[in-house]
Amino acid sequence: MSTAAHTITDVRLTPVLVADPPLLNTQGLHQPYTPRLIIEVETADGTTGVGETYGDAKYLDVARPFAAALAGRAISDLNGLFTLADSVAVDAARVDTAVDVGGLRGVQTADKLRLSVVSGFEVACLDALGKTLGLPVHALLGGKVRDSVEYSAYLFYRHAEHPPGVAGERDDWGAALDPAGVVAQARLFAQRYGFTSFKLKGGVFPPEQEIAAIRALAAAFPGRPLRLDPNGAWSVETSLKVAAELGDVLEYLEDPALGTPAMAEVAARTEVPLATNMCVTTFDEIPAAFTTGAVQVVLSDHHYWGGLRNTRELAAVCRTFGIAISMHSNTHLGISLAAMTHVAATVPDLRHACDSHYPWQSEDVLTERLRFEGGHVAVSDAPGLGVELDRDRLDALHRRWLDEDFAPLRERDDAAAMRRLDPEWRTPLVPRW
Amino acid sequence: MSTAAHTITDVRLTPVLVADPPLLNTQGLHQPYTPRLIIEVETADGTTGVGETYGDAKYLDVARPFAAALAGRAISDLNGLFTLADSVAVDAARVDTAVDVGGLRGVQTADKLRLSVVSGFEVACLDALGKTLGLPVHALLGGKVRDSVEYSAYLFYRHAEHPPGVAGERDDWGAALDPAGVVAQARLFAQRYGFTSFKLKGGVFPPEQEIAAIRALAAAFPGRPLRLDPNGAWSVETSLKVAAELGDVLEYLEDPALGTPAMAEVAARTEVPLATNMCVTTFDEIPAAFTTGAVQVVLSDHHYWGGLRNTRELAAVCRTFGIAISMHSNTHLGISLAAMTHVAATVPDLRHACDSHYPWQSEDVLTERLRFEGGHVAVSDAPGLGVELDRDRLDALHRRWLDEDFAPLRERDDAAAMRRLDPEWRTPLVPRW
Repeated sequence: MSTAAHTITDVRLTPVLVADPPLLNTQGLHQPYTPRLIIEVETADGTTGVGETYGDAKYLDVARPFAAALAGRAISDLNGLFTLADSVAVDAARVDTAVDVGGLRGVQTADKLRLSVVSGFEVACLDALGKTLGLPVHALLGGKVRDSVEYSAYLFYRHAEHPPGVAGERDDWGAALDPAGVVAQARLFAQRYGFTSFKLKGGVFPPEQEIAAIRALAAAFPGRPLRLDPNGAWSVETSLKVAAELGDVLEYLEDPALGTPAMAEVAARTEVPLATNMCVTTFDEIPAAFTTGAVQVVLSDHHYWGGLRNTRELAAVCRTFGIAISMHSNTHLGISLAAMTHVAATVPDLRHACDSHYPWQSEDVLTERLRFEGGHVAVSDAPGLGVELDRDRLDALHRRWLDEDFAPLRERDDAAAMRRLDPEWRTPLVPRW
Repeated sequence: MSTAAHTITDVRLTPVLVADPPLLNTQGLHQPYTPRLIIEVETADGTTGVGETYGDAKYLDVARPFAAALAGRAISDLNGLFTLADSVAVDAARVDTAVDVGGLRGVQTADKLRLSVVSGFEVACLDALGKTLGLPVHALLGGKVRDSVEYSAYLFYRHAEHPPGVAGERDDWGAALDPAGVVAQARLFAQRYGFTSFKLKGGVFPPEQEIAAIRALAAAFPGRPLRLDPNGAWSVETSLKVAAELGDVLEYLEDPALGTPAMAEVAARTEVPLATNMCVTTFDEIPAAFTTGAVQVVLSDHHYWGGLRNTRELAAVCRTFGIAISMHSNTHLGISLAAMTHVAATVPDLRHACDSHYPWQSEDVLTERLRFEGGHVAVSDAPGLGVELDRDRLDALHRRWLDEDFAPLRERDDAAAMRRLDPEWRTPLVPRW
């Protein structure tokens, strides 16, 4: 096999807008459509690899020069993607010191932006490399150690429909705004996908109401792993109160308070393990968090960390320090679910079910959607990721992105969506409670 | 490409005895011949991959059942090698709590034995996989970030010839038992291989003599990086005294004192960076060393750490905690030098020249020896490791291993060799000074 066949000859970037239900979090409400970027890398032998990442303008601004610089490079040159990324300028105006609204992933930095962009290209290169070599992506990561990956149900407080404005897609999930609604949603998740562990996105209602929802879940699903994630909305004292009240039923409490010092304070005073995808989102943030005992579970996200190989390195760092690992999810499509499943299949000490928003995404860019069975996604042994782009679907979702009527939705903005319900809504200051 | 082609159909283990010069260290003297194990992994399509590791009986005892269990597995199933290793029983009698004599690598454990064995098989699988896929090993590790890897001259106090007993091979290096001898050896290293950084294996003579040798090197090679490695032979106070006397010329001081607590004590009281391949030799040993500031440079060794992919994970852990990385070497042949060069080529933040004993090894099992030019080894872009076994040489060195006259040398024993010079010699207790 000649290396020339591995040379990148073309890169296509296709921003899309995909339907998103009216899910609530502490910062607001999901808009009816959310941006994603689909990346295609084509090689000299005609192989195409696909990846996906965030699609907001700040990501596109980095992805475009990055894509232009890729031509002529080898798809196997994955370490070189990071060197290349360092050479791509990031507009300082795109980097603010506030918590990133869409990502709920701590303070935005140029490095985080670059790594999120690299991740999409790395997955596309791995997909193309796997196809060219006849190997599944998991084999390029050293081989699967399990045949399927377990995911948890990702429960959200939600409305039945989007508020008036841009018409969203409808679904049959109904509203979930109280404990009974949350339990009904969980039952539907269990029935449709076979999930046996449950995570509730919290930080939406006062803690007493969310404690009641978790208690209702514990009564409905006795003994099942339960998690609550208020996205850093609580004070240390509130976090400790919730931990004390739910300690007997929680698998872990996710980002109860914002930032490593607050998390460390909580962790020092409770036996409930703390998980995070907010205070540990880059390698630089690890030493402070691990040496202060601030977190017991890191929720990795290959979009944040710079791809599947970096995810494996993160797992190695966690393993070394006796910190557990599992997987975070933001809104994503099937390409990323396939990527998450491949890398998760290779991490030996993955002992918590991974998160995925995928069941909430009614639209995808694949010819065939990935399926959850018994709460698990089977690990594909087909070459590459084992997914196929549906060009008609891709085109349709891209045309929506191009449509000027939808232009305001090209940036994820949960506060803007919330203001259609409550014109006075502002992104809450934390701690909110 | 069918996965069946990647199936392991045969594994060959060939222990060899290779010539070793009369090099001195704190535990004694190198014997005239030293054991290594050559591993060949053959796949269904006739591809053969090669690896090497330690060849003492305790390694062979683990390698044999491991090899037997490999048939039928895929060469790409590298993560599975660790699961498989866990299932191989290690004779408790092989594991002692003393410092490992041959390896000078801290306390021997079953896990260390297993990982050293896995490393040889992992390299052989990577070599075979690369050959099958038409990719160099560095590409299987994400691609090289440099075209050559820098090594340092590995200076040893030594005798001109082995003491009476088993006849060893002769060489033209002469003795080096004082500062002038060390400088002469360094000049020969620079002339023959172009090395520009120098490491002296210390712990052989009282510290004042070794300080004088380093001072002589600094005078002969002004401004060049210098290192001194007494293999943990010194007390904390002696370590600090040497650090104070040589601080202006040392790149780093390597394992001056034995064990993480002693190293931490030294590190707290000197500005000279401390390197180690003794107190950090497994992932388990990292947290204590990194959180106490005991080491500033980890000298990785893919034989210790379980292979090239684990070496990259070690590099990621070090990077995360701001600890530098470079590479340790024990006696090894060209297969391992090729493996070291491939992985070193992929580690972005390798900023110290790597160690290698290779110039001391006059014998090899390759058709063509690897070459140092300007102190660097070029990174091969040929499929696999880019080396070829010389079966005649391999057979000859294996016959030496089989020869009953050489049987006592099948176990590395530096103290036994030393006793041929000094019948009263016992492995010194540390701290020796």
